[in-house]
Amino acid sequence: MRDMPLSKVYQLLEPGPVVLLTTAQKGQANIMTMSWHMMVEFEPPLVACVVSNRNHSFAALRVTKQCVIAIPALELAPRVVEIGNCSGRDMDKFERFGLTPVPAKRVAAPLVAECCANLECKVVDTQMVNRFNIFILEVVKAWKDPAQKHAKTIHHHGYGKFAVDGEMIKLKSRMP
Amino acid sequence: MRDMPLSKVYQLLEPGPVVLLTTAQKGQANIMTMSWHMMVEFEPPLVACVVSNRNHSFAALRVTKQCVIAIPALELAPRVVEIGNCSGRDMDKFERFGLTPVPAKRVAAPLVAECCANLECKVVDTQMVNRFNIFILEVVKAWKDPAQKHAKTIHHHGYGKFAVDGEMIKLKSRMP
Repeated sequence: MRDMPLSKVYQLLEPGPVVLLTTAQKGQANIMTMSWHMMVEFEPPLVACVVSNRNHSFAALRVTKQCVIAIPALELAPRVVEIGNCSGRDMDKFERFGLTPVPAKRVAAPLVAECCANLECKVVDTQMVNRFNIFILEVVKAWKDPAQKHAKTIHHHGYGKFAVDGEMIKLKSRMP
Repeated sequence: MRDMPLSKVYQLLEPGPVVLLTTAQKGQANIMTMSWHMMVEFEPPLVACVVSNRNHSFAALRVTKQCVIAIPALELAPRVVEIGNCSGRDMDKFERFGLTPVPAKRVAAPLVAECCANLECKVVDTQMVNRFNIFILEVVKAWKDPAQKHAKTIHHHGYGKFAVDGEMIKLKSRMP
């Protein structure tokens, strides 16, 4: 994993990929699949996400106020779906799905070695948690895997149907 | 435009497409380009979005508490970028970009005839507006264009670079 400037983080999340979210509590790491997230600010990068209180990760995220957003490429899609189909209440999902937790630099939650990017995050606002399960995160450190430079991400359309990134087009825009 | 069940709205927004947002205030319709949005609840569908207070649409959205999220397919990409490059302060963007406003059923903001789907929305929570420019919307009526059933949407990677929907894959998932 190579260091990535925080000013470019929005370019990874704005397109709406399915992501993984890792947490760690009392030495126990967990991982969940997440599609409900959006950028809120460019720099420092702020991200809103919905983590349901029915998810095992909810308590760890609320208590530790730390997580990692890891972006999986197409090759991981079958595992991403399986991770979403089961709960960390019942198993160690890193071990079960053959994913490698790597110590992060600024948070206790682990990076995922197999993902093409990893974003270390701290919870900076919880006022929407009780009503909407919305957490506001600040990305405090970002990593990209140089070996996965042209990774294609996946976008969930419901019940395991995903659109894979296709053609890239470039139009003249003044907007970041 | 054909009626669409509210229970399926998340399947349109969860994949992270670039969308258009229309508003109407004092008989004047406006339209902006938006990429910062996420699903918050399945049904009734709740959507969070960021509309910056630097956008002309911000005041209309805050005052009228109504908008339409219109989803453009690839064919509209050049106009979607141009809409994002200018402001409704200076022009009628529907006229300028040859888009057809169509009266909505539940809100004053117009549908966009050329888009593949249109979601009529009411603002249901504004507690995050002052701090983060985040509005919580409820989709109260949804429309799909049957003639654009296989529309490809676009996903913004920054400065006019977009990933177009590519291959669709299907994996076995228990999750909506």
